[in-house]
Amino acid sequence: MKIVILGSGNMAHYCCTQLVAQHEFKLVQLYARNSIEGNILAKRFDTPIVNDLSAIIQNADIYIFAVADAAINQIANNFFKTEALLIHCAGSQPTTILENAGKNNGIIWPIYSIQKDQSTYPSDVPLVVDANNESARTSTELLAKSMSQNVTLLNHAQRKYMHLNAVLVNNFNNHLMAIAEQICKVENIDFNILLPIINQTAKRIELSSPSQSQTGPAKRGDWTTMQQQMDLLATHPEWQKVYESLSVSIKKMYDK
Amino acid sequence: MKIVILGSGNMAHYCCTQLVAQHEFKLVQLYARNSIEGNILAKRFDTPIVNDLSAIIQNADIYIFAVADAAINQIANNFFKTEALLIHCAGSQPTTILENAGKNNGIIWPIYSIQKDQSTYPSDVPLVVDANNESARTSTELLAKSMSQNVTLLNHAQRKYMHLNAVLVNNFNNHLMAIAEQICKVENIDFNILLPIINQTAKRIELSSPSQSQTGPAKRGDWTTMQQQMDLLATHPEWQKVYESLSVSIKKMYDK
Repeated sequence: MKIVILGSGNMAHYCCTQLVAQHEFKLVQLYARNSIEGNILAKRFDTPIVNDLSAIIQNADIYIFAVADAAINQIANNFFKTEALLIHCAGSQPTTILENAGKNNGIIWPIYSIQKDQSTYPSDVPLVVDANNESARTSTELLAKSMSQNVTLLNHAQRKYMHLNAVLVNNFNNHLMAIAEQICKVENIDFNILLPIINQTAKRIELSSPSQSQTGPAKRGDWTTMQQQMDLLATHPEWQKVYESLSVSIKKMYDK
Repeated sequence: MKIVILGSGNMAHYCCTQLVAQHEFKLVQLYARNSIEGNILAKRFDTPIVNDLSAIIQNADIYIFAVADAAINQIANNFFKTEALLIHCAGSQPTTILENAGKNNGIIWPIYSIQKDQSTYPSDVPLVVDANNESARTSTELLAKSMSQNVTLLNHAQRKYMHLNAVLVNNFNNHLMAIAEQICKVENIDFNILLPIINQTAKRIELSSPSQSQTGPAKRGDWTTMQQQMDLLATHPEWQKVYESLSVSIKKMYDK
């Protein structure tokens, strides 16, 4: 199966890295609007590159649109009509945004923060797969499985919830750590002291459900401690609201 | 140095485990009000145990009050007067709660969730140390360093902030994962798909500051996605408040 990859960012880099050693799937061409990043990628994976849509070879079996969410539709609308499998990588977008270019459409979406400066990737990057018909689904799933051991089929509604979940456990967790880091800076405390408990919190859920591991003042209804900690945040009303909303939500989850 | 440990919970278990192989510090007696847990501990560490305060030997050098926060003051008020070093393990409490029993008071507080069902503990459990005088501080620090490679002196004000930080990065992070888990259950999605990104989020801050790693709709000001994700949470107004407060706080941190 001949593959063309469009894009030169993180996901394009990941796809190239995972596919370059494959026998079933052969990377035959790259397309990139960003010629600097594109040329780096082309050189690294020893693959011909073009920066004009009309120069894309038309006899490939699969085209992977590993481009920014906003560019997917735009490129698809200017693409030649094809029977080939067209795949995009945006979890929040439906398969239909590719349909102006062809009727076999799939999605491969990593629930993972892919950074292109890595030379290798974990073999279990979670890839979520969907497609608009049975044969496209089979091919997209096979392709995803050639890139990762961790492939799951999820429909559009489920993907929306997983996108939300990724915000909760990645973006929001990260922000709580950023607040803790700022507090440490102001109070002249080494933030690294918190690394073991941060790691422990992430590791523990591999063994037990987070709802069973919940502890802390909100869980035990310790209003004195909660009020004292809210007072410590007095200079940052927006952090107080974070503290309050999470405490109320914890209380509600376990008061049943 | 002869040590008596009071308590039979997680911290008592940790102290026994870390001290039992020591030469400088010799565990000579245990005191526990809970005779079942106490006897398990005594048998495991081959140490005499008593359950009556008046039976505690009075010639030890250090007494570690590894008991519940509420019990520290209560036991100290009924303790014999001593010149020995008295240590408690509650990060949120001042050294003064021990002063009715003696004037050499220290604190060893783990910023880590210690579970007594472990047979070994990491060698870098972060231990925070404080004391009410120079000599007590030196001894408490030495004792803490015999238990862990990761010992930091923090005063009472700093400890309050670290207690708050532990709530942010442990209790609150855990709750965000618990929300994601519930969403997965309702939408019939395997929660384990999220484990790699959870791990990645925790690991990444070992290399770069969380404020530099921030991504997501709130960071990039993507109000469309934020509104869509808030709508997905419509059945849980308390989760919407969590989402909103964290998004507002992220926006504020980077809009400078």
